[in-house]
Amino acid sequence: MPVQASNFKTEVSTLLLNKDIPGLKAKLATSLPADVAPILAELPVEQLAALFRGCSKELSAAVFAYLEHGAKHKLLKTLTQPQVAALLNELPPDDRTAFLNELPLDLAMQMLSWLSPEERKVAQDLLAYPEHSVGRMMTLDFVAVRPGWTVREALTYVREHGYDRETLNMVYVTDEAGVLLDDIRVRRFLLADPETKVSALMDGNFATLAPADEQEKALLVFRKYDRVALPVTDAGQKLIGIVTADDMLDVASEEATEDIQKLGGSEALDEPYTTIALTKMVKKRASWLVVLFLGEMLTATAMSYFEDELAKAIVLSLFIPLVISSGGNAGSQAATLVIRALALGEFKLRDWWRIMRRELAAGLMLGLILGVIGFLRIVIWAQFSHIYDPSPLLVAITVGVALVGIVLWGSLMGSMLPLILKRLGFDPATSSAPFVATLVDVTGLIIYFSVALAIML
Amino acid sequence: MPVQASNFKTEVSTLLLNKDIPGLKAKLATSLPADVAPILAELPVEQLAALFRGCSKELSAAVFAYLEHGAKHKLLKTLTQPQVAALLNELPPDDRTAFLNELPLDLAMQMLSWLSPEERKVAQDLLAYPEHSVGRMMTLDFVAVRPGWTVREALTYVREHGYDRETLNMVYVTDEAGVLLDDIRVRRFLLADPETKVSALMDGNFATLAPADEQEKALLVFRKYDRVALPVTDAGQKLIGIVTADDMLDVASEEATEDIQKLGGSEALDEPYTTIALTKMVKKRASWLVVLFLGEMLTATAMSYFEDELAKAIVLSLFIPLVISSGGNAGSQAATLVIRALALGEFKLRDWWRIMRRELAAGLMLGLILGVIGFLRIVIWAQFSHIYDPSPLLVAITVGVALVGIVLWGSLMGSMLPLILKRLGFDPATSSAPFVATLVDVTGLIIYFSVALAIML
Repeated sequence: MPVQASNFKTEVSTLLLNKDIPGLKAKLATSLPADVAPILAELPVEQLAALFRGCSKELSAAVFAYLEHGAKHKLLKTLTQPQVAALLNELPPDDRTAFLNELPLDLAMQMLSWLSPEERKVAQDLLAYPEHSVGRMMTLDFVAVRPGWTVREALTYVREHGYDRETLNMVYVTDEAGVLLDDIRVRRFLLADPETKVSALMDGNFATLAPADEQEKALLVFRKYDRVALPVTDAGQKLIGIVTADDMLDVASEEATEDIQKLGGSEALDEPYTTIALTKMVKKRASWLVVLFLGEMLTATAMSYFEDELAKAIVLSLFIPLVISSGGNAGSQAATLVIRALALGEFKLRDWWRIMRRELAAGLMLGLILGVIGFLRIVIWAQFSHIYDPSPLLVAITVGVALVGIVLWGSLMGSMLPLILKRLGFDPATSSAPFVATLVDVTGLIIYFSVALAIML
Repeated sequence: MPVQASNFKTEVSTLLLNKDIPGLKAKLATSLPADVAPILAELPVEQLAALFRGCSKELSAAVFAYLEHGAKHKLLKTLTQPQVAALLNELPPDDRTAFLNELPLDLAMQMLSWLSPEERKVAQDLLAYPEHSVGRMMTLDFVAVRPGWTVREALTYVREHGYDRETLNMVYVTDEAGVLLDDIRVRRFLLADPETKVSALMDGNFATLAPADEQEKALLVFRKYDRVALPVTDAGQKLIGIVTADDMLDVASEEATEDIQKLGGSEALDEPYTTIALTKMVKKRASWLVVLFLGEMLTATAMSYFEDELAKAIVLSLFIPLVISSGGNAGSQAATLVIRALALGEFKLRDWWRIMRRELAAGLMLGLILGVIGFLRIVIWAQFSHIYDPSPLLVAITVGVALVGIVLWGSLMGSMLPLILKRLGFDPATSSAPFVATLVDVTGLIIYFSVALAIML
């Protein structure tokens, strides 16, 4: 049932102020944690502390996950150490890893010491993997059975060793040393005769991730195999954890957000636009704008070399924005398409010549289209106005030819720059649309004035 | 095990040419369909027909999903009608819907008639939902039990009515009329005492999708609830299908690709960059470039009004690219951030004033930063060069002040344009970076020359 956010918050708030714990429990019983957690996360920290004492551990953990980092910090200070320990123990291992990772090291160590011995081991193991790696997001709640068992024995084992938090969609088969032999969908266990051997359900086909894999790489593997969960194995093929598809949705979203922000000419914000501190956002945005600005200064330098020509034919200056922005647009377009195709793994770096051929052809066609439109625009305008005198046809030819060259050049630059960046080990998404546009602006001016020199002057 | 693509293809091809069906079967037995399907999909259509006769239906279906639309079409023509029927019956309902949807209507109807009666009903039901709706991607392979049954009865029922293709991670509880009462993870059944009533496992908490929901909306629901599958119910709360998280990964990827392509100033390609036909791609790219070009023509018109001022102070033209591109970059940046935040549901349209306040502050700060750098650049340069004579300080002040105004203006335009578009019912992502840049170019010129008129002329 959908919850009326503002009413619900007021009601819970009142119950908390009245210390009406049974009323609170009744109120919370019928709602999904994911529905009410974002609403409850807006309560003042003092009320949150009371709430956490009264509500289920599951709900506490859900609400905690929605708090801003500062609020988390503050809340932990108002709770007693056993309460903090209970809360931390309740958090899913991957969420807890993310939280601990944000803390100063000494505080993180203290928190770690409050975990139960098993949970501490889990947290330490997860923290040892590099950020944005599969190891950081995997969960250790998986069930592994042996090939020699019957389905009945396996199901009994699963029942006894069932874990609390994560989904159980696949059952993993390992040998005595923990080496992964196969993964089997739980439904196959349900559908099988209880006396069948587990080995009879095995087909030996499975895909695995490595804990050091980049999360973005894992995303490609998930897309390829259409699985709800994938096992993570170490170098010796030993099963050490699993990653579920619903967690990958967050990775996919974060990856796309990061790429989109870079393509738009900003450092990745790493926090939601609506909640990031203004100064932090300005810092991230300013850094790229300043770099672009410094690059764009070269246009003034380039133009100063052509000052005499400009003075002779002021009409040339009228088309500067039109001509260079067309090159910039063509470049942004090509860069964006190539960067996305690279991110989706549609082609490899060694295919660069295929991309270059495509962009040579596409850039030429696009340039001809814009060139013809630009030419016609000037020729037709010249019938009604004298601003292009004395030689409107020469102006039209100059602009038309320059457009073909600049659009072609922009498409080539835009498509090749991401590949060069990737080859050099940089993130191709940093060769964002504005970067390509800036580069093409400077070179575009040179093309434009060179064409003008040849045709008009 | 990873498969050596080129070797594998050659070996399979040889087996097919020798009509060695047992050898083929042995060769294919140890590989995952998802691994070999993209490799096999590259075989010539004649060999594919032979392959489909020899290999498992599951592999046929997997390979079929990887074929380009033209190859699918051609292959279906070389297969006999019973072979086509078997293949179509084997495809997962959502893949089949996607394929039928691409066919001309008469051919689609013919294909429908070849399906088994139940599969036909499934396909027709799915086809009746609008494109990009939840209805199109849901699968009807779910298992529903009654609350009054025991866990043992429910498991027996699941065993008997187990379906072949999709995952079974959740068991759905419905009443006699098929109204959804709850969803329960399969693992809870496994962990429960067989004599427990199903109703004892229920908590009445579940999230649902509607078949007419946009797939992008479903993505937000999946992200919120962290589920591997969500039930789809009709207006009367009757359970009609399920959607799984792994299918949402494709939606997330397509959604991001579409947004990224639009943000980069291109119509969404709807096909991979590497395989889309060149003319089709040029058409999609040209349409936006031409619109941008027509918009950018207004810069020439705007500048022609200031031709006299330009003639008086040629030095002004040197900074045109720098000044307008700074406004364009600031606008692209703001637009990209706001569009992405909208797509992620971080804020609602009615919060527009919050966004505006943020961008007013951010734009002013960014403008001041660039304005100061621009001012200093000209003042310092003037010590070494005479191109800014007779009044370098006035030039520096003009450029500096214009930059503050233009960057502020660009940030405001960039952030508000997506909101206006969304309010008018358009996709905010179409207010891409290049569109905002074009808009800001024209208005930026007017700001620049107005400042120049006030300060210098």
